[in-house]
Amino acid sequence: MLPTRDAPPARLHGAMHDAVFPGGRRARPLLCRLVADSYGGGDDEMVGRLAAAIELVHCASLVQDDLPCFDDAQTRRGQPACHVVYGQATAILVGDALLTLAFETLANAPARRAPVAFRLMGLLTAATGSSHGVIGGQALELEPHPVELEIYHRHKTAALFRAAAAGGAICCGVDADVSRWSRIGELIGCALQLRDDMDDVGASAADVGKTTGRDAALGRPNAALQSGLESCQQKRADVIAAVRELLGPPTPENQALHRLIEEVTRPSVQRAG
Amino acid sequence: MLPTRDAPPARLHGAMHDAVFPGGRRARPLLCRLVADSYGGGDDEMVGRLAAAIELVHCASLVQDDLPCFDDAQTRRGQPACHVVYGQATAILVGDALLTLAFETLANAPARRAPVAFRLMGLLTAATGSSHGVIGGQALELEPHPVELEIYHRHKTAALFRAAAAGGAICCGVDADVSRWSRIGELIGCALQLRDDMDDVGASAADVGKTTGRDAALGRPNAALQSGLESCQQKRADVIAAVRELLGPPTPENQALHRLIEEVTRPSVQRAG
Repeated sequence: MLPTRDAPPARLHGAMHDAVFPGGRRARPLLCRLVADSYGGGDDEMVGRLAAAIELVHCASLVQDDLPCFDDAQTRRGQPACHVVYGQATAILVGDALLTLAFETLANAPARRAPVAFRLMGLLTAATGSSHGVIGGQALELEPHPVELEIYHRHKTAALFRAAAAGGAICCGVDADVSRWSRIGELIGCALQLRDDMDDVGASAADVGKTTGRDAALGRPNAALQSGLESCQQKRADVIAAVRELLGPPTPENQALHRLIEEVTRPSVQRAG
Repeated sequence: MLPTRDAPPARLHGAMHDAVFPGGRRARPLLCRLVADSYGGGDDEMVGRLAAAIELVHCASLVQDDLPCFDDAQTRRGQPACHVVYGQATAILVGDALLTLAFETLANAPARRAPVAFRLMGLLTAATGSSHGVIGGQALELEPHPVELEIYHRHKTAALFRAAAAGGAICCGVDADVSRWSRIGELIGCALQLRDDMDDVGASAADVGKTTGRDAALGRPNAALQSGLESCQQKRADVIAAVRELLGPPTPENQALHRLIEEVTRPSVQRAG
Protein backbone atom coordinates (compact mmCIF):
# COMPACT_ATOMS: atom_id res chain seq x y z
CA MET A 1 0.00 0.00 0.00
CA LEU A 2 2.97 2.29 0.72
CA PRO A 3 4.46 3.20 -2.69
CA THR A 4 7.97 1.81 -3.22
CA ARG A 5 10.91 4.00 -2.16
CA ASP A 6 11.89 4.82 -5.73
CA ALA A 7 8.41 5.62 -7.08
CA PRO A 8 8.34 9.35 -7.87
CA PRO A 9 8.45 11.61 -5.96
CA ALA A 10 11.24 9.38 -4.63
CA ARG A 11 12.48 11.72 -1.93
CA LEU A 12 9.04 11.87 -0.35
CA HIS A 13 8.42 8.14 -0.69
CA GLY A 14 11.81 7.34 0.84
CA ALA A 15 11.00 9.59 3.78
CA MET A 16 7.60 7.92 4.18
CA HIS A 17 9.28 4.52 4.37
CA ASP A 18 11.67 5.75 7.03
CA ALA A 19 8.72 7.12 9.00
CA VAL A 20 6.93 3.77 8.95
CA PHE A 21 9.82 1.24 9.10
CA PRO A 22 11.19 0.04 11.43
CA GLY A 23 8.10 0.38 13.57
CA GLY A 24 7.73 0.75 17.31
CA ARG A 25 5.56 -1.63 19.26
CA ARG A 26 2.73 -1.42 16.68
CA ALA A 27 0.41 -1.45 19.66
CA ARG A 28 -2.61 0.02 17.81
CA PRO A 29 -2.69 -2.42 14.88
CA LEU A 30 -1.97 -5.26 17.29
CA LEU A 31 -4.92 -4.28 19.44
CA CYS A 32 -7.16 -4.15 16.37
CA ARG A 33 -6.03 -7.60 15.25
CA LEU A 34 -6.33 -9.17 18.72
CA VAL A 35 -9.86 -7.86 19.22
CA ALA A 36 -10.84 -9.45 15.90
CA ASP A 37 -8.96 -12.65 16.84
CA SER A 38 -10.97 -12.87 20.04
CA TYR A 39 -13.99 -13.45 17.74
CA GLY A 40 -12.15 -15.86 15.49
CA GLY A 41 -10.62 -13.28 13.16
CA GLY A 42 -13.54 -11.45 11.51
CA ASP A 43 -13.17 -9.96 8.03
CA ASP A 44 -9.44 -10.48 7.66
CA GLU A 45 -8.99 -8.12 4.72
CA MET A 46 -10.69 -5.23 6.49
CA VAL A 47 -8.96 -5.90 9.82
CA GLY A 48 -5.64 -5.67 7.97
CA ARG A 49 -6.61 -2.47 6.19
CA LEU A 50 -7.88 -0.79 9.33
CA ALA A 51 -4.85 -1.89 11.37
CA ALA A 52 -2.50 -0.46 8.71
CA ALA A 53 -4.53 2.74 8.37
CA ILE A 54 -4.45 3.41 12.11
CA GLU A 55 -0.70 2.84 12.28
CA LEU A 56 -0.21 5.23 9.34
CA VAL A 57 -2.12 7.97 11.16
CA HIS A 58 0.01 7.28 14.24
CA CYS A 59 3.26 7.47 12.24
CA ALA A 60 2.09 10.75 10.66
CA SER A 61 1.46 12.21 14.10
CA LEU A 62 4.94 11.17 15.30
CA VAL A 63 6.70 12.82 12.36
CA GLN A 64 4.76 15.96 13.05
CA ASP A 65 5.26 15.88 16.82
CA ASP A 66 9.02 15.82 16.26
CA LEU A 67 9.06 19.00 14.11
CA PRO A 68 10.97 22.00 15.46
CA CYS A 69 7.75 23.99 15.98
CA PHE A 70 6.26 21.16 18.07
CA ASP A 71 8.55 19.04 20.25
CA ASP A 72 11.76 19.72 18.32
CA ALA A 73 12.88 16.12 18.90
CA GLN A 74 16.05 14.88 17.23
CA THR A 75 15.50 11.14 17.47
CA ARG A 76 12.59 8.75 17.06
CA ARG A 77 12.61 4.95 17.44
CA GLY A 78 16.36 5.22 17.93
CA GLN A 79 16.92 6.90 14.53
CA PRO A 80 17.28 10.57 13.55
CA ALA A 81 13.84 12.17 13.28
CA CYS A 82 12.33 12.69 9.80
CA HIS A 83 12.89 16.47 9.73
CA VAL A 84 16.52 15.98 10.78
CA VAL A 85 17.20 13.73 7.77
CA TYR A 86 14.92 15.26 5.12
CA GLY A 87 14.23 18.80 6.31
CA GLN A 88 11.03 20.37 7.54
CA ALA A 89 9.22 20.73 4.22
CA THR A 90 9.51 17.03 3.37
CA ALA A 91 8.63 16.04 6.94
CA ILE A 92 5.42 18.09 6.75
CA LEU A 93 4.52 16.42 3.45
CA VAL A 94 5.27 13.01 4.94
CA GLY A 95 2.67 13.76 7.61
CA ASP A 96 0.07 14.76 5.00
CA ALA A 97 0.90 11.85 2.74
CA LEU A 98 0.71 9.19 5.48
CA LEU A 99 -2.58 10.65 6.65
CA THR A 100 -4.02 10.53 3.14
CA LEU A 101 -2.62 7.04 2.59
CA ALA A 102 -4.39 5.89 5.75
CA PHE A 103 -7.76 6.89 4.33
CA GLU A 104 -6.81 5.61 0.89
CA THR A 105 -6.05 2.21 2.42
CA LEU A 106 -9.69 1.99 3.49
CA ALA A 107 -11.01 3.56 0.28
CA ASN A 108 -9.13 1.01 -1.84
CA ALA A 109 -10.85 -1.96 -0.26
CA PRO A 110 -12.68 -4.21 -2.75
CA ALA A 111 -16.02 -2.63 -3.74
CA ARG A 112 -18.02 -5.41 -2.10
CA ARG A 113 -16.54 -4.28 1.25
CA ALA A 114 -17.88 -0.73 0.72
CA PRO A 115 -20.38 -0.78 3.63
CA VAL A 116 -17.82 -1.77 6.26
CA ALA A 117 -15.04 0.35 4.71
CA PHE A 118 -17.39 3.33 4.79
CA ARG A 119 -18.12 2.76 8.47
CA LEU A 120 -14.44 2.36 9.34
CA MET A 121 -13.72 5.55 7.44
CA GLY A 122 -16.14 7.40 9.71
CA LEU A 123 -14.49 5.87 12.76
CA LEU A 124 -10.96 6.72 11.65
CA THR A 125 -11.65 10.27 10.47
CA ALA A 126 -13.26 11.04 13.85
CA ALA A 127 -10.31 9.50 15.73
CA THR A 128 -7.93 11.63 13.65
CA GLY A 129 -9.77 14.94 13.35
CA SER A 130 -9.77 18.26 15.15
CA SER A 131 -12.82 17.77 17.38
CA HIS A 132 -12.20 14.40 19.03
CA GLY A 133 -9.01 12.99 17.54
CA VAL A 134 -5.23 13.08 17.44
CA ILE A 135 -5.07 16.43 15.63
CA GLY A 136 -7.36 17.98 18.24
CA GLY A 137 -4.99 16.60 20.89
CA GLN A 138 -1.95 18.17 19.28
CA ALA A 139 -3.85 21.45 18.99
CA LEU A 140 -4.69 21.41 22.71
CA GLU A 141 -0.96 21.87 23.36
CA LEU A 142 -1.20 25.23 21.62
CA GLU A 143 -4.34 26.56 23.30
CA PRO A 144 -3.74 29.76 25.30
CA HIS A 145 -5.40 28.42 28.50
CA PRO A 146 -4.24 25.34 30.46
CA VAL A 147 -5.62 22.05 29.27
CA GLU A 148 -7.23 19.37 31.39
CA LEU A 149 -4.85 16.43 31.30
CA GLU A 150 -7.50 13.75 30.86
CA ILE A 151 -9.09 15.47 27.86
CA TYR A 152 -5.66 15.94 26.31
CA HIS A 153 -4.79 12.25 26.71
CA ARG A 154 -8.20 11.17 25.47
CA HIS A 155 -7.63 13.03 22.21
CA LYS A 156 -3.94 12.71 21.63
CA THR A 157 -3.40 9.08 22.56
CA ALA A 158 -6.60 7.27 23.41
CA ALA A 159 -8.53 8.19 20.23
CA LEU A 160 -6.60 5.81 17.97
CA PHE A 161 -6.72 2.97 20.51
CA ARG A 162 -10.48 3.49 20.75
CA ALA A 163 -10.77 3.25 16.98
CA ALA A 164 -8.49 0.20 16.85
CA ALA A 165 -10.54 -1.77 19.35
CA ALA A 166 -13.96 -0.62 18.15
CA GLY A 167 -12.95 -1.14 14.52
CA GLY A 168 -11.72 -4.66 15.24
CA ALA A 169 -15.19 -5.45 16.61
CA ILE A 170 -16.93 -3.79 13.63
CA CYS A 171 -14.91 -6.02 11.29
CA CYS A 172 -16.40 -9.00 13.14
CA GLY A 173 -19.97 -7.76 12.85
CA VAL A 174 -20.47 -7.70 16.63
CA ASP A 175 -22.18 -4.31 16.84
CA ALA A 176 -23.51 -4.86 20.35
CA ASP A 177 -19.94 -5.10 21.68
CA VAL A 178 -18.51 -2.04 19.92
CA SER A 179 -19.01 0.43 22.77
CA ARG A 180 -17.38 -1.93 25.29
CA TRP A 181 -14.35 -2.31 23.01
CA SER A 182 -14.28 1.41 22.50
CA ARG A 183 -13.98 1.87 26.27
CA ILE A 184 -11.32 -0.85 26.54
CA GLY A 185 -9.31 0.83 23.78
CA GLU A 186 -9.60 4.19 25.48
CA LEU A 187 -8.34 2.82 28.80
CA ILE A 188 -5.40 1.04 27.15
CA GLY A 189 -4.50 4.33 25.44
CA CYS A 190 -4.66 6.16 28.76
CA ALA A 191 -2.45 3.58 30.47
CA LEU A 192 0.09 3.82 27.67
CA GLN A 193 0.09 7.60 27.87
CA LEU A 194 0.69 7.46 31.62
CA ARG A 195 3.63 5.14 30.87
CA ASP A 196 4.96 7.60 28.28
CA ASP A 197 4.57 10.49 30.72
CA MET A 198 6.58 8.57 33.32
CA ASP A 199 9.21 7.70 30.72
CA ASP A 200 9.55 11.33 29.63
CA VAL A 201 10.29 12.28 33.23
CA GLY A 202 12.26 9.27 34.48
CA ALA A 203 13.93 7.54 31.49
CA SER A 204 16.83 8.38 29.18
CA ALA A 205 16.75 8.69 25.38
CA ALA A 206 18.75 5.44 25.18
CA ASP A 207 16.07 3.64 27.21
CA VAL A 208 13.16 4.64 24.99
CA GLY A 209 14.68 5.50 21.58
CA LYS A 210 13.42 9.06 21.54
CA THR A 211 14.32 12.37 23.16
CA THR A 212 13.06 12.54 26.77
CA GLY A 213 12.48 15.43 29.17
CA ARG A 214 10.62 17.32 26.43
CA ASP A 215 7.37 17.82 28.33
CA ALA A 216 9.07 19.76 31.14
CA ALA A 217 11.19 21.73 28.65
CA LEU A 218 8.18 22.64 26.50
CA GLY A 219 5.55 23.03 29.21
CA ARG A 220 3.47 20.16 27.81
CA PRO A 221 0.80 18.53 29.99
CA ASN A 222 2.39 15.49 31.70
CA ALA A 223 0.77 13.39 34.43
CA ALA A 224 4.08 12.53 36.10
CA LEU A 225 5.10 16.18 36.21
CA GLN A 226 1.70 17.24 37.45
CA SER A 227 1.22 14.72 40.26
CA GLY A 228 4.54 12.89 40.64
CA LEU A 229 5.79 9.49 39.53
CA GLU A 230 4.27 7.59 42.42
CA SER A 231 0.74 8.89 41.95
CA CYS A 232 1.13 8.27 38.24
CA GLN A 233 2.09 4.65 38.83
CA GLN A 234 -0.97 4.21 41.03
CA LYS A 235 -3.22 5.75 38.40
CA ARG A 236 -1.76 3.49 35.73
CA ALA A 237 -2.43 0.45 37.93
CA ASP A 238 -6.04 1.59 38.45
CA VAL A 239 -6.60 2.05 34.73
CA ILE A 240 -5.12 -1.36 33.94
CA ALA A 241 -7.34 -2.96 36.59
CA ALA A 242 -10.36 -1.29 34.99
CA VAL A 243 -9.41 -2.64 31.54
CA ARG A 244 -8.90 -6.13 32.87
CA GLU A 245 -12.29 -6.03 34.52
CA LEU A 246 -13.97 -4.99 31.27
CA LEU A 247 -12.05 -7.69 29.45
CA GLY A 248 -13.03 -10.40 31.93
CA PRO A 249 -10.75 -13.13 33.30
CA PRO A 250 -8.21 -14.64 30.88
CA THR A 251 -9.67 -17.20 28.47
CA PRO A 252 -8.11 -18.83 25.39
CA GLU A 253 -9.87 -16.12 23.30
CA ASN A 254 -8.68 -13.06 25.19
CA GLN A 255 -5.39 -14.07 26.77
CA ALA A 256 -3.38 -12.40 24.00
CA LEU A 257 -5.19 -9.16 24.81
CA HIS A 258 -4.30 -9.50 28.48
CA ARG A 259 -0.67 -9.96 27.43
CA LEU A 260 -0.79 -6.94 25.13
CA ILE A 261 -2.04 -4.76 27.96
CA GLU A 262 0.81 -5.93 30.14
CA GLU A 263 3.38 -5.25 27.43
CA VAL A 264 2.32 -1.88 26.11
CA THR A 265 1.80 -0.32 29.50
CA ARG A 266 4.98 -1.57 31.21
CA PRO A 267 7.35 1.32 32.05
CA SER A 268 10.57 1.25 29.99
CA VAL A 269 12.59 1.58 33.17
CA GLN A 270 11.63 -0.31 36.30
CA ARG A 271 11.63 2.14 39.18
CA ALA A 272 12.20 1.38 42.84
CA GLY A 273 9.12 1.61 45.08
CA MET B 1 -19.39 20.42 8.70
CA LEU B 2 -16.60 22.77 9.82
CA PRO B 3 -16.82 22.89 13.65
CA THR B 4 -17.82 26.32 14.99
CA ARG B 5 -15.02 28.78 15.76
CA ASP B 6 -15.44 28.44 19.53
CA ALA B 7 -15.67 24.63 19.69
CA PRO B 8 -12.53 23.37 21.46
CA PRO B 9 -9.72 23.49 20.51
CA ALA B 10 -10.92 27.01 19.68
CA ARG B 11 -7.62 28.37 18.45
CA LEU B 12 -7.36 25.63 15.83
CA HIS B 13 -11.00 25.89 14.80
CA GLY B 14 -10.73 29.68 14.47
CA ALA B 15 -7.68 29.24 12.24
CA MET B 16 -9.52 26.64 10.16
CA HIS B 17 -12.37 29.09 9.57
CA ASP B 18 -9.93 31.78 8.47
CA ALA B 19 -8.35 29.32 6.06
CA VAL B 20 -11.69 28.49 4.45
CA PHE B 21 -13.59 31.84 4.62
CA PRO B 22 -13.65 34.09 2.73
CA GLY B 23 -12.99 31.79 -0.20
CA GLY B 24 -11.31 32.47 -3.51
CA ARG B 25 -13.10 31.65 -6.75
CA ARG B 26 -14.20 28.23 -5.44
CA ALA B 27 -13.45 26.98 -8.94
CA ARG B 28 -13.17 23.30 -7.96
CA PRO B 29 -16.51 22.95 -6.13
CA LEU B 30 -18.15 25.05 -8.83
CA LEU B 31 -16.86 22.72 -11.53
CA CYS B 32 -18.15 19.71 -9.61
CA ARG B 33 -21.58 21.29 -9.23
CA LEU B 34 -21.81 22.43 -12.86
CA VAL B 35 -20.88 19.01 -14.22
CA ALA B 36 -23.70 17.53 -12.11
CA ASP B 37 -26.07 20.33 -13.21
CA SER B 38 -25.37 19.49 -16.84
CA TYR B 39 -27.13 16.16 -16.08
CA GLY B 40 -29.95 17.79 -14.15
CA GLY B 41 -28.21 17.88 -10.74
CA GLY B 42 -27.51 14.25 -9.81
CA ASP B 43 -27.36 13.18 -6.16
CA ASP B 44 -27.48 16.63 -4.63
CA GLU B 45 -26.33 15.56 -1.18
CA MET B 46 -23.23 13.81 -2.50
CA VAL B 47 -22.41 16.55 -5.00
CA GLY B 48 -22.44 19.01 -2.08
CA ARG B 49 -20.27 16.78 0.08
CA LEU B 50 -17.74 16.11 -2.65
CA ALA B 51 -17.59 19.79 -3.67
CA ALA B 52 -16.95 20.80 -0.05
CA ALA B 53 -14.39 18.03 0.47
CA ILE B 54 -12.39 19.04 -2.61
CA GLU B 55 -12.36 22.68 -1.54
CA LEU B 56 -11.16 21.66 1.94
CA VAL B 57 -8.22 19.75 0.44
CA HIS B 58 -7.45 22.79 -1.70
CA CYS B 59 -7.58 25.16 1.32
CA ALA B 60 -5.30 22.78 3.25
CA SER B 61 -2.77 22.86 0.43
CA LEU B 62 -2.82 26.67 0.33
CA VAL B 63 -2.15 27.00 4.07
CA GLN B 64 0.75 24.64 3.68
CA ASP B 65 2.11 26.23 0.51
CA ASP B 66 2.36 29.54 2.37
CA LEU B 67 4.51 28.13 5.22
CA PRO B 68 8.03 29.53 5.63
CA CYS B 69 9.62 26.23 4.58
CA PHE B 70 7.58 26.18 1.35
CA ASP B 71 6.73 29.49 -0.37
CA ASP B 72 7.07 31.69 2.72
CA ALA B 73 4.12 33.81 1.55
CA GLN B 74 2.79 36.55 3.82
CA THR B 75 -0.65 37.06 2.29
CA ARG B 76 -3.38 34.85 0.87
CA ARG B 77 -6.73 35.92 -0.59
CA GLY B 78 -5.82 39.47 0.45
CA GLN B 79 -5.43 38.54 4.15
CA PRO B 80 -2.36 37.68 6.23
CA ALA B 81 -1.44 34.01 5.69
CA CYS B 82 -2.44 31.46 8.36
CA HIS B 83 1.09 30.99 9.74
CA VAL B 84 1.50 34.78 10.00
CA VAL B 85 -1.58 35.08 12.24
CA TYR B 86 -1.44 31.80 14.18
CA GLY B 87 2.15 30.62 13.94
CA GLN B 88 3.62 27.66 12.14
CA ALA B 89 2.50 24.91 14.50
CA THR B 90 -1.17 25.86 14.27
CA ALA B 91 -0.90 26.35 10.50
CA ILE B 92 0.49 22.83 10.10
CA LEU B 93 -2.37 21.43 12.18
CA VAL B 94 -4.87 23.45 10.13
CA GLY B 95 -3.57 21.64 7.05
CA ASP B 96 -3.95 18.22 8.69
CA ALA B 97 -7.34 19.05 10.13
CA LEU B 98 -8.80 20.36 6.85
CA LEU B 99 -7.47 17.31 5.04
CA THR B 100 -9.06 14.98 7.58
CA LEU B 101 -12.29 16.98 7.53
CA ALA B 102 -12.44 16.58 3.77
CA PHE B 103 -12.47 12.80 4.08
CA GLU B 104 -14.79 12.97 7.08
CA THR B 105 -17.26 14.99 4.99
CA LEU B 106 -17.57 12.02 2.65
CA ALA B 107 -17.47 9.45 5.47
CA ASN B 108 -20.33 11.20 7.27
CA ALA B 109 -22.72 10.83 4.36
CA PRO B 110 -25.95 8.98 5.22
CA ALA B 111 -25.31 5.22 5.36
CA ARG B 112 -27.55 4.55 2.33
CA ARG B 113 -25.07 6.62 0.27
CA ALA B 114 -22.18 4.34 1.31
CA PRO B 115 -21.50 2.91 -2.19
CA VAL B 116 -21.11 6.31 -3.87
CA ALA B 117 -19.34 7.86 -0.86
CA PHE B 118 -16.88 4.98 -0.90
CA ARG B 119 -16.16 5.54 -4.58
CA LEU B 120 -15.73 9.28 -4.13
CA MET B 121 -13.37 8.59 -1.25
CA GLY B 122 -11.16 6.56 -3.57
CA LEU B 123 -11.25 9.37 -6.12
CA LEU B 124 -10.38 12.08 -3.59
CA THR B 125 -7.65 10.19 -1.75
CA ALA B 126 -5.91 9.53 -5.09
CA ALA B 127 -6.25 13.19 -6.12
CA THR B 128 -4.73 14.23 -2.79
CA GLY B 129 -2.03 11.60 -2.21
CA SER B 130 1.68 11.30 -2.80
CA SER B 131 1.65 9.29 -6.04
CA HIS B 132 -0.79 11.20 -8.27
CA GLY B 133 -2.20 14.04 -6.21
CA VAL B 134 -1.64 17.47 -4.69
CA ILE B 135 0.81 16.23 -2.05
CA GLY B 136 2.89 14.52 -4.73
CA GLY B 137 2.89 17.83 -6.62
CA GLN B 138 4.17 19.74 -3.62
CA ALA B 139 6.82 17.09 -3.09
CA LEU B 140 8.03 17.44 -6.68
CA GLU B 141 9.19 20.94 -5.74
CA LEU B 142 11.63 19.35 -3.31
CA GLU B 143 13.06 16.65 -5.56
CA PRO B 144 16.80 16.97 -6.15
CA HIS B 145 16.52 16.74 -9.98
CA PRO B 146 14.56 19.17 -12.20
CA VAL B 147 10.89 18.38 -12.62
CA GLU B 148 8.98 18.19 -15.89
CA LEU B 149 6.55 21.10 -15.81
CA GLU B 150 3.58 19.21 -17.17
CA ILE B 151 3.87 16.42 -14.60
CA TYR B 152 4.19 18.99 -11.84
CA HIS B 153 1.04 20.84 -12.99
CA ARG B 154 -0.87 17.61 -13.45
CA HIS B 155 -0.26 16.68 -9.82
CA LYS B 156 -0.27 19.99 -8.06
CA THR B 157 -3.23 21.68 -9.75
CA ALA B 158 -5.00 19.44 -12.22
CA ALA B 159 -5.56 16.50 -9.83
CA LEU B 160 -8.32 18.21 -7.84
CA PHE B 161 -10.02 19.55 -10.98
CA ARG B 162 -9.96 16.06 -12.42
CA ALA B 163 -11.60 14.70 -9.25
CA ALA B 164 -14.16 17.54 -9.21
CA ALA B 165 -15.34 16.90 -12.77
CA ALA B 166 -15.17 13.09 -12.60
CA GLY B 167 -16.84 13.08 -9.18
CA GLY B 168 -19.66 15.31 -10.43
CA ALA B 169 -20.34 12.72 -13.13
CA ILE B 170 -20.14 9.81 -10.65
CA CYS B 171 -22.79 11.54 -8.52
CA CYS B 172 -25.05 11.47 -11.58
CA GLY B 173 -24.48 7.78 -12.25
CA VAL B 174 -23.11 8.42 -15.75
CA ASP B 175 -20.15 6.06 -15.54
CA ALA B 176 -19.55 6.01 -19.30
CA ASP B 177 -18.81 9.76 -19.23
CA VAL B 178 -16.44 9.78 -16.25
CA SER B 179 -13.18 9.56 -18.21
CA ARG B 180 -14.21 12.39 -20.55
CA TRP B 181 -14.99 14.61 -17.54
CA SER B 182 -11.73 13.59 -15.96
CA ARG B 183 -9.90 14.87 -19.03
CA ILE B 184 -11.96 18.07 -19.11
CA GLY B 185 -11.15 18.68 -15.44
CA GLU B 186 -7.47 18.07 -16.05
CA LEU B 187 -7.35 20.56 -18.92
CA ILE B 188 -9.19 23.22 -16.91
CA GLY B 189 -6.69 22.73 -14.11
CA CYS B 190 -3.79 23.11 -16.54
CA ALA B 191 -5.27 26.30 -18.02
CA LEU B 192 -5.72 27.74 -14.55
CA GLN B 193 -2.16 26.85 -13.60
CA LEU B 194 -0.86 28.57 -16.74
CA ARG B 195 -2.87 31.63 -15.69
CA ASP B 196 -1.36 31.47 -12.18
CA ASP B 197 2.13 31.12 -13.61
CA MET B 198 1.57 34.21 -15.75
CA ASP B 199 0.19 36.09 -12.75
CA ASP B 200 3.16 35.16 -10.60
CA VAL B 201 5.46 36.68 -13.20
CA GLY B 202 3.39 39.61 -14.48
CA ALA B 203 0.94 40.70 -11.76
CA SER B 204 1.26 42.48 -8.40
CA ALA B 205 0.15 41.19 -4.99
CA ALA B 206 -2.66 43.80 -5.05
CA ASP B 207 -3.95 42.37 -8.35
CA VAL B 208 -4.20 38.80 -7.15
CA GLY B 209 -4.47 38.96 -3.34
CA LYS B 210 -1.35 36.90 -2.71
CA THR B 211 2.41 37.37 -2.81
CA THR B 212 3.71 37.24 -6.41
CA GLY B 213 7.16 36.71 -7.89
CA ARG B 214 7.66 33.71 -5.61
CA ASP B 215 8.38 31.16 -8.31
CA ALA B 216 11.42 33.08 -9.57
CA ALA B 217 12.59 33.78 -6.02
CA LEU B 218 12.25 30.13 -4.96
CA GLY B 219 13.26 28.43 -8.20
CA ARG B 220 9.84 26.80 -8.59
CA PRO B 221 8.78 25.39 -11.98
CA ASN B 222 6.81 28.13 -13.78
CA ALA B 223 5.67 27.99 -17.42
CA ALA B 224 5.92 31.76 -17.94
CA LEU B 225 9.45 31.82 -16.57
CA GLN B 226 10.44 28.79 -18.60
CA SER B 227 9.07 29.81 -21.99
CA GLY B 228 7.97 33.44 -21.67
CA LEU B 229 4.57 35.10 -21.24
CA GLU B 230 3.70 35.05 -24.92
CA SER B 231 4.24 31.34 -25.42
CA CYS B 232 2.39 30.74 -22.18
CA GLN B 233 -0.63 32.70 -23.43
CA GLN B 234 -0.64 30.63 -26.61
CA LYS B 235 -0.47 27.40 -24.66
CA ARG B 236 -3.34 28.53 -22.45
CA ALA B 237 -5.42 29.32 -25.53
CA ASP B 238 -4.66 25.86 -26.96
CA VAL B 239 -5.66 24.13 -23.75
CA ILE B 240 -8.90 26.11 -23.54
CA ALA B 241 -9.71 25.26 -27.15
CA ALA B 242 -9.16 21.58 -26.35
CA VAL B 243 -11.52 21.78 -23.34
CA ARG B 244 -14.20 23.52 -25.38
CA GLU B 245 -13.95 20.87 -28.05
CA LEU B 246 -14.39 18.08 -25.49
CA LEU B 247 -17.28 19.99 -23.97
CA GLY B 248 -19.01 20.53 -27.33
CA PRO B 249 -20.73 23.72 -28.50
CA PRO B 250 -22.66 25.71 -25.88
CA THR B 251 -26.11 24.31 -25.06
CA PRO B 252 -28.53 25.23 -22.26
CA GLU B 253 -27.02 22.32 -20.24
CA ASN B 254 -23.36 23.19 -20.57
CA GLN B 255 -23.28 26.97 -21.07
CA ALA B 256 -22.48 27.55 -17.39
CA LEU B 257 -19.43 25.31 -17.82
CA HIS B 258 -18.29 27.30 -20.83
CA ARG B 259 -18.62 30.45 -18.70
CA LEU B 260 -16.69 28.89 -15.81
CA ILE B 261 -13.80 28.04 -18.12
CA GLU B 262 -13.71 31.60 -19.35
CA GLU B 263 -13.72 32.99 -15.81
CA VAL B 264 -11.24 30.76 -14.05
CA THR B 265 -8.64 30.92 -16.77
CA ARG B 266 -8.75 34.67 -17.49
CA PRO B 267 -5.49 36.39 -16.50
CA SER B 268 -5.85 38.73 -13.50
CA VAL B 269 -4.15 41.49 -15.45
CA GLN B 270 -4.90 42.02 -19.12
CA ARG B 271 -1.62 42.27 -20.94
CA ALA B 272 -0.91 44.12 -24.16
CA GLY B 273 -0.24 41.94 -27.21
